[in-house]
Amino acid sequence: MRGYKVIFHINESEKWSTVLANVNNLIKDLGKDDVIVEIVANGYAVMDYVFDINNKYNEIIDKMLSTSKLEVQFIACRNSLVGNKIDEKLLPSFVKVVPAGVTELIKKQSEGYAYIKP
Amino acid sequence: MRGYKVIFHINESEKWSTVLANVNNLIKDLGKDDVIVEIVANGYAVMDYVFDINNKYNEIIDKMLSTSKLEVQFIACRNSLVGNKIDEKLLPSFVKVVPAGVTELIKKQSEGYAYIKP
Amino acid sequence: MRGYKVIFHINESEKWSTVLANVNNLIKDLGKDDVIVEIVANGYAVMDYVFDINNKYNEIIDKMLSTSKLEVQFIACRNSLVGNKIDEKLLPSFVKVVPAGVTELIKKQSEGYAYIKP
Repeated sequence: MRGYKVIFHINESEKWSTVLANVNNLIKDLGKDDVIVEIVANGYAVMDYVFDINNKYNEIIDKMLSTSKLEVQFIACRNSLVGNKIDEKLLPSFVKVVPAGVTELIKKQSEGYAYIKP
Repeated sequence: MRGYKVIFHINESEKWSTVLANVNNLIKDLGKDDVIVEIVANGYAVMDYVFDINNKYNEIIDKMLSTSKLEVQFIACRNSLVGNKIDEKLLPSFVKVVPAGVTELIKKQSEGYAYIKP
Repeated sequence: MRGYKVIFHINESEKWSTVLANVNNLIKDLGKDDVIVEIVANGYAVMDYVFDINNKYNEIIDKMLSTSKLEVQFIACRNSLVGNKIDEKLLPSFVKVVPAGVTELIKKQSEGYAYIKP
């Protein structure tokens, strides 16, 4: 049983490397079988889920992919995707879309998840 | 009964449009009868509660007013008002003053409110 | 018995004065016997724990020291110390080191601590 549960909240693109480093440090510290991790992206931060051949942030997507293999769930807010004109079909398959990121943040906390905003 | 409860924390003026968009998206998603929302402003963010005829942020106050009609409670930290030399009597009537914003954030979390910092 | 418990999270150097002002306002409001306060620093924020004779932030260390006398616990993340090449032996004695700041943030929330990110 994974005893600890946590949501990481990100709404600014420039925070992705910090969030991913935090998550990887967490799993290194606790072990992936002892913590359930979900990353909820809303606002501009959802834009970094989309691979762009001209995007300097592709190293971020590579890091997201390797992090997702540690059973970390990546979430995108649909309101933010629409607001930033991103077609959901462009998202990598390790990203799950929810209607509203803020609702996800509230529901998870009501289920006992800790909240961290790097 | 409104099942979900959440406090949004804001301490930077430039975050107001994000906070208000988040709250409106939340209520659109869950319905205003299913979630209790409080916005706690401290630090410089309390300055935006004051209407200023020369203030480019008056659109923020308009948005606050329409958001307050969705039964969202707006809070100002008295320490921050004093620190920024704002007379409480200048605050719009939809804003409630508490002695310390941080205390409000702790008390509400102890009552089961989720915390979101946009 | 101290009824309220809170962790303040800081990962950016420029937030120290806000965090310390928040903590001092909180204790002024509730009284130090009614609230347990822990400040968890990770990322670049751990660098400000180290006294530097050329450091313009020494006023921050003075304020940390006086705040620690109010029974506030200061925490540094070891991953962040290593990442910023800071030898733990240089830390002031009021700072406690944990293996991972994020783990500390999760454990404390699971024990009922409120979370505040100034």
